[in-house]
Amino acid sequence: MEKAFRVNPWEVSGKVDYAKLISEFGISKLDEKTLNRIKKHTKELHPMLRRGVFFAHRDFNWLLDEYENGNKFFLYTGRAPSGKIHLGHLVPWIFTKWLQEKFDVDLYFQFPNEEKFLFNQNTTYEKVQEYLEDNMLDVAALGFKPGRTHFIIDTKHADLLYPEAVKVAKKITFSMVKASFGMNESSNIGAIFYTAMQAVPAFLPSVIKKKKIPCLIPHGVDQDPHFRLTRDILPKLGYYKPASIQNAFMPPLKGVEGKTSSSDETSAIFLHDSPKEVETKIKKYAFSGGRDTLEEHRKKGGNPDVDVSFQYLKFLFEEDDSKLAKIEKDYRSGKMLTSELKKIAIDKINAFLKEHQAKRAKITPKILERDWLWKV
Amino acid sequence: MEKAFRVNPWEVSGKVDYAKLISEFGISKLDEKTLNRIKKHTKELHPMLRRGVFFAHRDFNWLLDEYENGNKFFLYTGRAPSGKIHLGHLVPWIFTKWLQEKFDVDLYFQFPNEEKFLFNQNTTYEKVQEYLEDNMLDVAALGFKPGRTHFIIDTKHADLLYPEAVKVAKKITFSMVKASFGMNESSNIGAIFYTAMQAVPAFLPSVIKKKKIPCLIPHGVDQDPHFRLTRDILPKLGYYKPASIQNAFMPPLKGVEGKTSSSDETSAIFLHDSPKEVETKIKKYAFSGGRDTLEEHRKKGGNPDVDVSFQYLKFLFEEDDSKLAKIEKDYRSGKMLTSELKKIAIDKINAFLKEHQAKRAKITPKILERDWLWKV
Repeated sequence: MEKAFRVNPWEVSGKVDYAKLISEFGISKLDEKTLNRIKKHTKELHPMLRRGVFFAHRDFNWLLDEYENGNKFFLYTGRAPSGKIHLGHLVPWIFTKWLQEKFDVDLYFQFPNEEKFLFNQNTTYEKVQEYLEDNMLDVAALGFKPGRTHFIIDTKHADLLYPEAVKVAKKITFSMVKASFGMNESSNIGAIFYTAMQAVPAFLPSVIKKKKIPCLIPHGVDQDPHFRLTRDILPKLGYYKPASIQNAFMPPLKGVEGKTSSSDETSAIFLHDSPKEVETKIKKYAFSGGRDTLEEHRKKGGNPDVDVSFQYLKFLFEEDDSKLAKIEKDYRSGKMLTSELKKIAIDKINAFLKEHQAKRAKITPKILERDWLWKV
Repeated sequence: MEKAFRVNPWEVSGKVDYAKLISEFGISKLDEKTLNRIKKHTKELHPMLRRGVFFAHRDFNWLLDEYENGNKFFLYTGRAPSGKIHLGHLVPWIFTKWLQEKFDVDLYFQFPNEEKFLFNQNTTYEKVQEYLEDNMLDVAALGFKPGRTHFIIDTKHADLLYPEAVKVAKKITFSMVKASFGMNESSNIGAIFYTAMQAVPAFLPSVIKKKKIPCLIPHGVDQDPHFRLTRDILPKLGYYKPASIQNAFMPPLKGVEGKTSSSDETSAIFLHDSPKEVETKIKKYAFSGGRDTLEEHRKKGGNPDVDVSFQYLKFLFEEDDSKLAKIEKDYRSGKMLTSELKKIAIDKINAFLKEHQAKRAKITPKILERDWLWKV
């Protein structure tokens, strides 16, 4: 029997059955027809679309209808600071960057710097603020369009967010957050209120520009409960329901179940890791789909479906489908050894991190403030 | 049997038994000893202290200990915009103004412009914002010390308030707001969160000045549940419990039970009323302690304890104790008729309103912004 899995904004555990999640969450599978519509605009499909990393959506076809009628959308995604950024975090952001380029749209990137403080008993407010700056530097280094990318910090932009959040909040009862997020009598009142703050960027540009603008939220499927509630409320306030496009989780370093955790240093490769650290982590911790002995591997072949190095290439680091297919074929046949596969992953990851770290080193807190922080 | 009374931040009804309230709320009676300590600093006692309008407190003696040791407090009071300002609202503010002058301290005046929106199904956000400006003009005209009086608007100052409110909120569970305010499963999540926003001005000056500063909150006794919770939380965040000094309710125009309501135009005298309107309201609506006939009144005398005109003089408009005592005596004996008592009240109120309206007319939104809005 399959082990039970859990997916919600605060927990992802077990081996996720994505087909089951689609029906449970009531989201739509990203089908051939929708992919073809996207392709009409983007010429090619991003690898994450071709490979089903982004696998589900809400109202994406409506969003394209609006787009085709000249009503451009904006993008909204985010990061709740709570630790260092690891490779798993990059999946929706790199895809968001692609969407921004292809559709030539604005991006609002929210840093809810109160969320993890409110939901985690063991985190202090000060600790979260340290991660806030660290995380912003990494996001800024990813190469979103300057001038069209706007960082929103919940506490810094509270004068913009809170007045709108109370309008959302008035439409959400305790029963509703109980049903959506499992809140109970012991939940703190900040955590209870929080979902209202997360809803705001989905319509704040419409408030400021005084017209209804469609919103697209690329996000990990675990965040769907937040936006489900947001979608129920926004039409009541006179705004569009935000559309979404949702990704599956890149497996943690040690295995394909669940989501990478920032709190365990050996569970992930972080953006600040050195080439040596990456090499050690992949060699020592990356879960392998290889066989126990060289002989057995050559004979029976490896399993790329559970091999973390292969999955990293598939999710992020090998954009060329034919190259990826060859690696998959060779590994499955036993022609390619785990050590060879790991070597490819290490090189690819280190090439990416070298460039990323160089870009990040050029960004100062002053540049963050000047170029990235949202100014209204 | 006495009719039941209810006193909480959203409802004041029935004939309030203040002695019972003191024991139910666990507040302290403002006794002779404390009054004498206050007098040591202020030389004379404000009429509202001499007459028991301010009748209870929390930790006022501790506050005076600190003051005498050179640790000055700041004042914090507020107004949740939801309608026009009436005479009943003035009671704590006029007393606060006196405290500010006598103790030479800063005042933070909060305008929680989301509260009534969140707690009242029939109010729109826009309506509340109209009242916000109107109410600020009235408060500014009362004559608090310019430069030492700081208006805090919840949505405008949310970038200062919200980061601190989440720290308060993390310490308050749903059970606690259920017990304190009667929240239930149908309560909206903004209302559930709100008490955290109301707690913040009690320690925000300490945050900004980076030292623990005592806080004194003069307020109507109905607000005690908010600050009871605040007092439990603040020491956990490293701040002093705020002290408070609490007033009884000036009776509504139509009778001594409950609190004046801004939603009923004939239930109160508003600060914008014309002399003619005041005259009509007092003559037509002000509940009278007089007898049914002139003859009976002359013989048995009137009852100033329930007479609204007399109560207005006692609460706000006749500062001279001997004059008030003479009016009381004459009315009780039947020597003074209701029409004569009403005439005194009308003249006093109109003299006050004339001056107030003239002061208010000189204040523009620009002056509010420049001189009164808190700048950090």
